Amino acid sequence: MKKVLIANRGEIAVRIIRACKELNIETVAVYSEADREALHVQIADEAYCIGPKLSKDSYLNFSNIISVAKLTGCDGIHPGYGFLAENASFAELCEECAITFIGPSSSAISSMGTKDVARETMRKAGVPVVPGSVGIVEDEQEGLKVALEIGFPVIIKATAGGGGKGIRVARNEEELVKGIQITQKEAAAAFGNPGVYLEKFIEEFRHVEIQVLADGHGNAVHLGERDCSIQRRMQKLVEEAPSPALSEELRSAMGEAAVKAALAVNYQSAGTVEFIFDHINNKFYFMEMNTRIQVEHPVTEMVTGIDLIQQQLKIAAGEKLAFEQKDIKIKGWSIECRINAENPAKNFMPSPGKVEMYLAPGGNGVRVDSAMYPGYNIPPFYDSMVAKLITYGDTREEAIATMKRALSEFVIDGVETTILFHEKLMNHEVFISGDFDTKFLEKYDVINS
Amino acid sequence: MKKVLIANRGEIAVRIIRACKELNIETVAVYSEADREALHVQIADEAYCIGPKLSKDSYLNFSNIISVAKLTGCDGIHPGYGFLAENASFAELCEECAITFIGPSSSAISSMGTKDVARETMRKAGVPVVPGSVGIVEDEQEGLKVALEIGFPVIIKATAGGGGKGIRVARNEEELVKGIQITQKEAAAAFGNPGVYLEKFIEEFRHVEIQVLADGHGNAVHLGERDCSIQRRMQKLVEEAPSPALSEELRSAMGEAAVKAALAVNYQSAGTVEFIFDHINNKFYFMEMNTRIQVEHPVTEMVTGIDLIQQQLKIAAGEKLAFEQKDIKIKGWSIECRINAENPAKNFMPSPGKVEMYLAPGGNGVRVDSAMYPGYNIPPFYDSMVAKLITYGDTREEAIATMKRALSEFVIDGVETTILFHEKLMNHEVFISGDFDTKFLEKYDVINS
Repeated sequence: MKKVLIANRGEIAVRIIRACKELNIETVAVYSEADREALHVQIADEAYCIGPKLSKDSYLNFSNIISVAKLTGCDGIHPGYGFLAENASFAELCEECAITFIGPSSSAISSMGTKDVARETMRKAGVPVVPGSVGIVEDEQEGLKVALEIGFPVIIKATAGGGGKGIRVARNEEELVKGIQITQKEAAAAFGNPGVYLEKFIEEFRHVEIQVLADGHGNAVHLGERDCSIQRRMQKLVEEAPSPALSEELRSAMGEAAVKAALAVNYQSAGTVEFIFDHINNKFYFMEMNTRIQVEHPVTEMVTGIDLIQQQLKIAAGEKLAFEQKDIKIKGWSIECRINAENPAKNFMPSPGKVEMYLAPGGNGVRVDSAMYPGYNIPPFYDSMVAKLITYGDTREEAIATMKRALSEFVIDGVETTILFHEKLMNHEVFISGDFDTKFLEKYDVINS
Repeated sequence: MKKVLIANRGEIAVRIIRACKELNIETVAVYSEADREALHVQIADEAYCIGPKLSKDSYLNFSNIISVAKLTGCDGIHPGYGFLAENASFAELCEECAITFIGPSSSAISSMGTKDVARETMRKAGVPVVPGSVGIVEDEQEGLKVALEIGFPVIIKATAGGGGKGIRVARNEEELVKGIQITQKEAAAAFGNPGVYLEKFIEEFRHVEIQVLADGHGNAVHLGERDCSIQRRMQKLVEEAPSPALSEELRSAMGEAAVKAALAVNYQSAGTVEFIFDHINNKFYFMEMNTRIQVEHPVTEMVTGIDLIQQQLKIAAGEKLAFEQKDIKIKGWSIECRINAENPAKNFMPSPGKVEMYLAPGGNGVRVDSAMYPGYNIPPFYDSMVAKLITYGDTREEAIATMKRALSEFVIDGVETTILFHEKLMNHEVFISGDFDTKFLEKYDVINS
């Protein structure tokens, strides 16, 4: 791998360029017209405009991106996260154009991209899935049978649904019968497919995910878990590694399940297997696999000492993993706070605009991944996450203490940010206790605490 | 320890305030009139002006500093490095005023502050010292006897000299006889004491130092070495841990010698024992002990995971060390580049002034300790070091690669800096080889390479 195009923007583009530089790989940035002054454009070896401000015309523009890669002689394209990262068609196009897509194969992306197919693949591979029907339920009678088997409450999901649509919870037989009828009807209308299936509804759980790395030579390892239970409307706000809720036994079992999941789809590159962790019953179930690098990957890097982007680049170049499962040790504790240009007091309304003053915290145990600089104009067209503040300590307590002092130093003037929200969270006794689930932010009014 | 006054400025004041915050200790900053807008003033809980711009009127002003500490109810004073850090009288005054001096006792500072006394103390404690005379030599005849015993070249040192004064090298008998006469005469005139002693002159050596930590309960450990051989006129420019030149055996032997040195003076707090490492003959000799935290302490923090400033605070509060020698593991490699506001092309002439644009590098494996910010005015009255860029990797090669990419990102506009010098150094094949000594910068013209 000699030259890589980074098909992304913001902090992840900067992150990937950094890893390339460290491995002596040349970098080509691409940018929309709104990102002309962006940091990733400034620090890459070369940079090319690929279209207007809207993502669909630039960062999602297959042909422009492939053209730049071809014209600049790139060996590979790193998609980052979001945009084209889990687009099997784009990965396929790269394959056809003899450009290495730095990620898994298009077929691995496809297998994991469809929720029901993935669920079935995982079940067959022996990865625990949420108890439920095998395939669709034909009618209310079959649904009732399944529901009584797995117990109420259950969740009725449209096979063709997704993104929170075509989903309905049933807490008793009456709700189930009605729910199946309505969901089938709605699904037929919305997706042209009335098929529904049932899953046990787990109301209180932690979001725990396992980082995996797999090379193209049949080797796969896991790098422990991340706990991402601090969410607002399914959006992760804070992540940590390890999880405060996992025993060593569960960690191993979950890790082994994740490796099984990766091997089941011939996975290659870095990937994440997300689990529903029912911390009340100490059981975990496959949720989905993200076939890309994730926003929260740094906390894993901090506790394992393994640079995940460098690993992606090496794997894409055909290298074998230089370590085995037994070589991977989890040491210390790391927390990441996503700093968004949003106003938490106004329901997290985005706050784009000019960053008048910018000074990131530094010192021991602090890592900042950001694409901001003094005078930078945050455009309103993309994600509002503008910095990731990551801290490290021997213990969770130390990582929190360092996070508190780092947040107190972080200066971002000119736009609203979530810094104050994170400061309140780090001082919240339930967060400090480590004993919470994904409903934490529904249960507690952190911003007014 | 509830409240600490930081009797310093610049990056080390910021560093200490950060550690205090992490330990939930209140902080009081002091500043000269030239430092009104300094970062350490902004991030401390309280800040007080202690005098005009010149250090002697402010940062060296005992009574003003003690007054602020007393008036604000501080339990302790952290002196940082430089200024009052190795001033036994100041440490004594703190002791008298019932304020904890966060460092060793005044008597330990004194014992190590006088070069000859320290040499004799070390010899008696079994720490290797450079071969030479025991005490002063009476006349040329005795000098000749000693010189023939230890072999030429030798170095003639005035007992009362120091700071490079009263020192003369002799390469043969003739030079020795003349040298003793002249040095005695000069020393009598300059210091009122004609006494001279002899040491073997080691021309080519590496500067290798050992970090020690000792509590007030008789426990002392070492945290491995730092190699500080990249120097310009005795000023360290780059430091690394571990040393590329030390075998595991030498590392242990040097570490044990350093612990002996610390115990010999009832040392308490963090300290550094500096050694002349004769890498050609694989021998090391005591040079001096620095009875304070050092500029280059972060590289040790990176490879051991131990926060040295936090340790100083804990030890000063009377805590026992929470680890033993066997618990301390050196992992990976760390390098520090001192970024000075100087122009390397103009003989490293200081370049104070306004920092128009400032953006520190971030990402994996990068730590920045600095007190700069966009718009900061670097005053001309103090040290020209304005940032420490520290990188970490599994190997020396990785730490260098990350340093190169971090240097390439570092933006400091408005003043001249040593960033370009460091970039050239990191690409210099002799530096990369790891095989160099303290004469490296005399031998190679790095800036024009």
